[in-house]
Amino acid sequence: MKYPNGQRRKNVSFPKTQSFSNRGMSLEEDINSTNQYYLDTDKAIIHKKPTPVQIVKVNYPKRSAAVITEAYFKQASTTDYNGLYRNKYIDFEAKETRNKTSFPLANIHEHQINHMESIVNHGGICFLIIRFTQLDETYFLPATYLFKYWYEKEKDGRKSIPYEKIKQHGYHLPFHYQARVDYLAIIDKFYF
Amino acid sequence: MKYPNGQRRKNVSFPKTQSFSNRGMSLEEDINSTNQYYLDTDKAIIHKKPTPVQIVKVNYPKRSAAVITEAYFKQASTTDYNGLYRNKYIDFEAKETRNKTSFPLANIHEHQINHMESIVNHGGICFLIIRFTQLDETYFLPATYLFKYWYEKEKDGRKSIPYEKIKQHGYHLPFHYQARVDYLAIIDKFYF
Repeated sequence: MKYPNGQRRKNVSFPKTQSFSNRGMSLEEDINSTNQYYLDTDKAIIHKKPTPVQIVKVNYPKRSAAVITEAYFKQASTTDYNGLYRNKYIDFEAKETRNKTSFPLANIHEHQINHMESIVNHGGICFLIIRFTQLDETYFLPATYLFKYWYEKEKDGRKSIPYEKIKQHGYHLPFHYQARVDYLAIIDKFYF
Repeated sequence: MKYPNGQRRKNVSFPKTQSFSNRGMSLEEDINSTNQYYLDTDKAIIHKKPTPVQIVKVNYPKRSAAVITEAYFKQASTTDYNGLYRNKYIDFEAKETRNKTSFPLANIHEHQINHMESIVNHGGICFLIIRFTQLDETYFLPATYLFKYWYEKEKDGRKSIPYEKIKQHGYHLPFHYQARVDYLAIIDKFYF
């Protein structure tokens, strides 16, 4: 649902001899796979929250599972991912953009910014994972840097964060086979 | 969905002169209201995770919101609530029982126990909120105490935690108007 590009292949398994790239995999799939690897190796407990849905009608057929027959997508009031790593509360949002020169702030909602600010104020580790799909590059951007651009936008500043600034103030997340988006490596390096 | 008792009243607003009791309110509603109070007063950021749903069919009518027309409830692999308080990761599950003498362990799934153990091992604060609806009493039970009974059950022990033990090893959560299930008061007292 979140990635309207119907051409993106899902659950592709690469032959083991092929060189690995994240092409064809959505950022969400890569992060879910990374979180599963962190769970399996008992490194961190980080999950994607379920998609918020407003359930209107449910049928309870005899001898089979309840079927939801009418429901609507709700806007998330927080971020998509949270969890626990090295005694710390972790909270982040992941976004893909097809833009090659900047990350449009329209990808983020104001209530998400409010949420992320609260997280930072209460001692959590909060960030954004941004993938430039056309460049096949993924970055870890600390939330505080996102706030700076958000406030500038509020004061009639620019409505996006330039790619060059993300490169400069964020951290590149190289593709690894086991932890495809190894954001904990960045946390280890810069938050402890 | 979670509270099959159709007679339970929802969103009841009491006249301000009436004495307050939590009768008629589900534990989930009381906790959601408590979490909202914590958010509003900037005390903690704790949310209920959305109900996990497997979406099968979605209609996209012209000029109106997407409608989910076929979906199924999925079993949660973690707990219902998590968040951040005083730099600490908070994680808990809330359960009501109509049983008056014990809390049946059938209310908890094994993967939830595994999740809760990981949380404790990685430095999170993890617990259960149990309401005995017939007694109108609510308790905070540390996860470690739940584990003890779970392991005994695994070794052919009893399949429930006696009410008296919960009273003895848990902490009673009295009903307050603003924070109806004020579990942070217990955390302040016993975890810091």
